[in-house]
Order: sequence, then C-alpha cells, then structure tokens
Amino acid sequence: MQTQLPTIALAMGDPAGVSPELTAKLLANDEVRAAARFVVFGDRRILDDGARIAGVTPDIAVVAPGASYDATAKPVLIDLAHLAPQDVKRGEATPEGGAFALENFRQALLMANEGRADAVCFTPFNKKAMRYVYPGYDDEIRFAADVTGFKGAAREFNVLDNLWNCRVTSHIPLSEVAAALSVEGILAELELAERCMRESGIEKPRIAVAGLNPHAGDGGNFGQEEIDIIEPAVKLAILKGFNASGPYPADTVYVRARNGEFDGVLTMYHDQGQIAMKLMGFDRGVTMMGGFPFPICTPAHGTAYDIAGRGIANLGASKAAVLLAARMAARNLAAKNK
Amino acid sequence: MQTQLPTIALAMGDPAGVSPELTAKLLANDEVRAAARFVVFGDRRILDDGARIAGVTPDIAVVAPGASYDATAKPVLIDLAHLAPQDVKRGEATPEGGAFALENFRQALLMANEGRADAVCFTPFNKKAMRYVYPGYDDEIRFAADVTGFKGAAREFNVLDNLWNCRVTSHIPLSEVAAALSVEGILAELELAERCMRESGIEKPRIAVAGLNPHAGDGGNFGQEEIDIIEPAVKLAILKGFNASGPYPADTVYVRARNGEFDGVLTMYHDQGQIAMKLMGFDRGVTMMGGFPFPICTPAHGTAYDIAGRGIANLGASKAAVLLAARMAARNLAAKNK
Repeated sequence: MQTQLPTIALAMGDPAGVSPELTAKLLANDEVRAAARFVVFGDRRILDDGARIAGVTPDIAVVAPGASYDATAKPVLIDLAHLAPQDVKRGEATPEGGAFALENFRQALLMANEGRADAVCFTPFNKKAMRYVYPGYDDEIRFAADVTGFKGAAREFNVLDNLWNCRVTSHIPLSEVAAALSVEGILAELELAERCMRESGIEKPRIAVAGLNPHAGDGGNFGQEEIDIIEPAVKLAILKGFNASGPYPADTVYVRARNGEFDGVLTMYHDQGQIAMKLMGFDRGVTMMGGFPFPICTPAHGTAYDIAGRGIANLGASKAAVLLAARMAARNLAAKNK
Repeated sequence: MQTQLPTIALAMGDPAGVSPELTAKLLANDEVRAAARFVVFGDRRILDDGARIAGVTPDIAVVAPGASYDATAKPVLIDLAHLAPQDVKRGEATPEGGAFALENFRQALLMANEGRADAVCFTPFNKKAMRYVYPGYDDEIRFAADVTGFKGAAREFNVLDNLWNCRVTSHIPLSEVAAALSVEGILAELELAERCMRESGIEKPRIAVAGLNPHAGDGGNFGQEEIDIIEPAVKLAILKGFNASGPYPADTVYVRARNGEFDGVLTMYHDQGQIAMKLMGFDRGVTMMGGFPFPICTPAHGTAYDIAGRGIANLGASKAAVLLAARMAARNLAAKNK
C-alpha cells in the first residue's frame, strides 16, 4: 500500500518579484510534484506570466473558488482571479501586490487550519506591500496566528543544508537579551526545536546550545548567565531525553555545526545565529515556522525585485522549502494514521 | 637608493607546540627574509629541533646575549640558551615552556621599545604555560604594556585576507555591552583602526561600523543605541575625513565585507566579529596588536599541540603575520626618515 501523500496549500507571493516564476517552476518540477499534492492560491493570469518567464508549462488543473477539485492527479490552482497582469508593477511594492499575496496566504492558512491541507508554503512576500492593505502585518507568524486563532507558541527556524538555527530571543534590543533569558524559556525553545527537527526526519537531533557571553562566560569571568540559566536548562533538557549540549562559545559553535557535529544550534539572540547563517549562505535556505498545528515553510530569500521577470531566479531555496514541508507533513500524517 | 628594511624582533613561542618548526620555516622562507631583518629570541637547540622537524636549514647567525651582531646579511638568533630539548614535553603546557616563551617575548618587546627593532612578532604562545611562571599574564597586550611601560590605548585587531576586524568592547558580559558604548569610545576605536590600517598600506580604509541591535535597531524599533550613539560617532568620523560608514545590520555586514565592499569592520562586541571571522577561517589570519609605538603581530591560530613535531604545520598565518608587521614597520620607518 502506498503512503498517502500530504497536501500542501501553496500561496503565491508578491507578484512584482520572482514569486510568480518560482511558483511556476515549483509546479513544473518532478521532484516537487512527487513529494506532495498541491493546492495553489493565486491568479491564473499571474501564474501563466510566471510560467512564460520561467520557460515552463506546468501541467495543472485550474478551478474557481468553491468548485470541487481533485488534487491527487495534478496540482490544482484555485484561481481567485484577483489580480490582472497589467496591474502588476514589476519591482515595486504596491497595495495591489500586497492584497494579492495576503489573500493567497490567508486562504492557504485557512485550508490547513480546517484540516484540508497538511502544510502551508509560500513564495516570497513583500512586507511593505502587505502593510499597505493590512497595516497590522507584523510578520508571518503573527498573521498566521491572527488568521487561525492559534494561541500557542510559534517560532521561526532557519534551515540551511539540514542545519537548523533557532533562537530564544529575537527582535528585542541587545541590552534586554540577558534579562529575557530563563531556564523555562530556553527549555521551551529546545522542546519546540527538537519536535520540529524530529518531524523533519532527524531521529535524535543533536542540538548545540550557544552561550550568551564571550567565550561562553569563561567560567563566570565574563558573565554568569551560562552558569545560572543556560547550563541548568541544558541539563534539564538532557534529563528529558534530549540530545542537547552546551553552552558553547558562540564564535565556534557554527564552525563545529558546519563540520557536521550538530543538527541544530539554539542561540540566545538574533544576530548570534543570523551572522553565522547569512555567511554560510542562508539565502539558499528555508524559513520554517514551527509550533502551529501544521508546518509553514518559505524560501529564506526575498522577492528579488532586481532580477524579477528575467527567468533567472534560482529554484533551490523554494524547492528546499516545499520538500521540507512535505517531509514534515508526511510524518505528521503517518503519525496520525497509526 | 634602496629603502632601509625594517628590523623585526621575533620571539619563539611555546616550545611544546608548532612554534619551533614555524620559526624555522619562517627563517628559511625567501619572501620572509626579503621583507625584513630578523633578530630572533630563543634557544639554538630548540630552533635546530624545529628546523629538523620542518625539514629546513635556515641560514642564520647565532650569537650570545650581549654580543654584537649584524642582522643585515642574515637573520640573527640571540641564543638565550635557556631551554634544553630534553626539558620540552611535546604537547604539554609546562612551566619550562612558559618561561621560555615569556622571556623571548620580553626581550623582543624591550628591543623594540628601545628603538632597536621596528616590530615584534611571535609564534604561538600557550597562556596556561606562561601563567605558571607569570600568574598575572592576562593577554599579550597587558603583558606588552607591563614590559614597555606603555600607557596609551592598545587594541587587538584580527586580519584575514586583508579584511580587518576591530571591536569596541571585548571580554565583558553581553549585558554590559550597551552601557559600555559611547560616541567618544567608538570614535577612538575608529581612529586607532584607521591608523593601523593605513600603516598596513591601505590608503583610505573603508571601515564599516556594525550596529548593536538586530537589524541595526530597525529605526529605533529594537533599540536606540544606533540612533543615540553609533550614528553620531560615524558622522563625526566622516567629518574627520575617515572613510567610515554605518551603522549596518551585523548579520549582513560581513557578507558585504567578504564581497570586497569594506576593508574593515568595527564591531560593538566580541562575538559579533568573532562568529564571522572564525567562520571565514580566521585561523588562517593574523592577530595584530595596535596602539603601541611598534606593531606586534602573531598568527591567529594556537600552539596546535595535536600536530606538533610532525612538520605539517601550515606556515600561512605566521608568514602573513610577519609580512604584515614588516609592511607596517617599513611605512613607519619611511615616515620617520622623511
């Protein structure tokens, strides 16, 4: 008996950048098509434009919203018919583009939230464009929580070449980071990270926990947080059966991770991980939002307005995003059906 | 008329690691010998051992301490005769090894401080070994200040493939970094960095200043230090004629620097630069101590106890250190003789 393929709700992103061509390329890619069933939210004309630019002719079905469809044979585009190509200003963040992406994302989220899709993916958004029509658009996690009513903890992970990056604090002033750390907080992040990494197919994820201070505090000489907070959290995680270790000096933990010593790194603050991930080429990577009842994945790079419409956008990150979502959704499905 | 070559006082480092073989390789290297005159402090027997291990036979003169010598024709070893090879425990930090390196460094510093050498270099030290005999040995800068009586500001720079890394704060808890920043402090670091970089031969160094907070504060949303402190410091630096810019988000500034956009990056705290430099392979780089009346340079890597005695130690970083010191010393000499 064949395993049931997961269904991915795929939202077309900002129409002024590379999202249309990337969406078309994804739908024309054999490896992608073999990994999941796809229900795409967008506009047929914009997708056709993307296909023309990308030089592909994806074999898909196009249906109107509310019509019945069968996504088992081929990807289905729900044609929301909400953006005419002549209203796209390539390379510009516009209210029309924002409304397009926002509605696609909303529909994809609702579909997954109602249990009719097992994961959500989207090609790159432009936040500025989305804020024209939804001024409260903070980030994808906040919006997804708004749309789905999800009240739990959700977090953004960065995944590059199977190395996961997660962080305990994010968009707060550096001066507030130390005070924001707690044993419980670090443990909660570790648990979420471990769960998502397992869902992605890593059986016993080796998670390195970074210290906060230079040389991880050098035994208390340059700060106490390692001794008072981080080490106890790591010990508790190990007691819970996690394959966690640390705290490690932040300036070598990514060198070790890159050498294959760890599957993921939990950092204490935004730039600790982002400096490393961006140097390692994170634009080739995936942003994964974990914690929701279904995985949400997107390429880490942006709308790339500068190369939009030229058909040269690299599919790598988008493909990695969709394949990660498919892998996670497939395991969740299998667990449910057990 | 030929330009006068600078004289480098070269201290042999820890005898239990790769320092003896690196010293011998340096002295046998044509490019190194052409760049400066060398006065080496060490023990002839340890250097001979290093030469044997490295498979080289450097043509040098050996003299006793206090004897007259002429370093213009070939490198001169001042044979302090203070360590017998049978007292070296390869791969171990010992008081004997520490005393050896410490005395070599002290003599080299004194020679330069008395104006008889134009730069100081050393092959890798082991701090633990040095602390056996000099418990107050904190770091090279502190020790050099102790020995020379220098009271000014001195700082460590990391130089990799001509990219300079400097930092405003270093070995302090992360929670204290924000409070340690000031316009004057940042400006002073910029001035020292710019001077050292110019001495190294970069005519108009392009120095990028990193922000402190995620996304460099995102216009004040994630912290005020960029607006209140860093930006004013950069503006003052520009008024002084420096080619400084920023503050830039820390997670992309090194990507840009690696792409050739900047000659140096001034960071606000230890790991901001160290995470990036170590990922870029800083072990291949040079540690340069600036601010003293003469440059002090050493390879960034350590004693490499694990590969000591096998003759496989890579000369790259040591050679880069000596050539950088020679370049800086030559420019200082030329400026003096103008």
